[in-house]
Amino acid sequence: MSFQGEQYPGVQTPSAETQGFRFNHTMLRVKDPERSLAFYSRVFGMRVLRKLDFPEMQFTLYFLANLGDDEDVPEDPAERNAYTFAQKGILELTHNWGTEDQEGFAYHDGNAEPQGFGHICFSVPDLPAAVAWFDANQVEFKKRPEDGKMKDVAFVKDPDGYWIEVVQPELSKGLGQ
Amino acid sequence: MSFQGEQYPGVQTPSAETQGFRFNHTMLRVKDPERSLAFYSRVFGMRVLRKLDFPEMQFTLYFLANLGDDEDVPEDPAERNAYTFAQKGILELTHNWGTEDQEGFAYHDGNAEPQGFGHICFSVPDLPAAVAWFDANQVEFKKRPEDGKMKDVAFVKDPDGYWIEVVQPELSKGLGQ
Repeated sequence: MSFQGEQYPGVQTPSAETQGFRFNHTMLRVKDPERSLAFYSRVFGMRVLRKLDFPEMQFTLYFLANLGDDEDVPEDPAERNAYTFAQKGILELTHNWGTEDQEGFAYHDGNAEPQGFGHICFSVPDLPAAVAWFDANQVEFKKRPEDGKMKDVAFVKDPDGYWIEVVQPELSKGLGQ
Repeated sequence: MSFQGEQYPGVQTPSAETQGFRFNHTMLRVKDPERSLAFYSRVFGMRVLRKLDFPEMQFTLYFLANLGDDEDVPEDPAERNAYTFAQKGILELTHNWGTEDQEGFAYHDGNAEPQGFGHICFSVPDLPAAVAWFDANQVEFKKRPEDGKMKDVAFVKDPDGYWIEVVQPELSKGLGQ
């Protein structure tokens, strides 16, 4: 693949020791799991693969994924753990018990100062249809596709205010050209 | 799949409007792209699928992925954009030009206050071998597998201090049991 020929400072060709390494998941803390699970399941079509409770540390983890119709997920919870950690594109939501009842409690979105994490991104097959779907579900937009310099890219906010980019792969071809 | 029967507050069955939605990428800002690209390519075996420059806004985006030997990535940059945004498990690194030269400049890892984003996670085929690989590359550990309450899970730090969880799927079967 000749894009291997695109050399950038620092980049090395992956070595044998990293074979099978796989970017599995991203973890975001959420204030209210009921609200977040409703949002990611209804609006972004994700399924809860596993819920893991850690009573002694007072938190629960939810692992979510967009599943294709043909994906065969193990029923057995232990096997489903192994399945979950072997995938790409998993979203982990961490609920520290009790935050949902704390008035004024809020997590930091990473875009206000101090900055760090920026956003997660979903690709969709039809951006205008997705925008209509978000509007029908009263999703808050940070940027609609027609706003700003990057056309054909939308940003919405999840219930904690984390930014979610939304792109249609076919519409991204002009980026960086 | 009977895990659909595991009902949690808020969760809805995905509707037709979300068909084809896919969790594509996670974006992290990085201070020094040369250092970050060296780290993610050498230590975690990622390849740079696309580099997108936005001179008028003074930033560059790098899209990285762990590729299997059989993955056929388009050579044409426009087609490679579309390919990149159609995948799962993409890591986007944002470089705001000049931060690498600013003494004391640092991004926020999301785990110190104010909290929000927690970590990204890679799965590996052999955790002890991965730990030896990290040690051989002077990677800083936040938690070695044998430390703390969650055995068989490691956390390392990337060059900006972002936490990276490292798991071996087969060793995760006991979690939450």
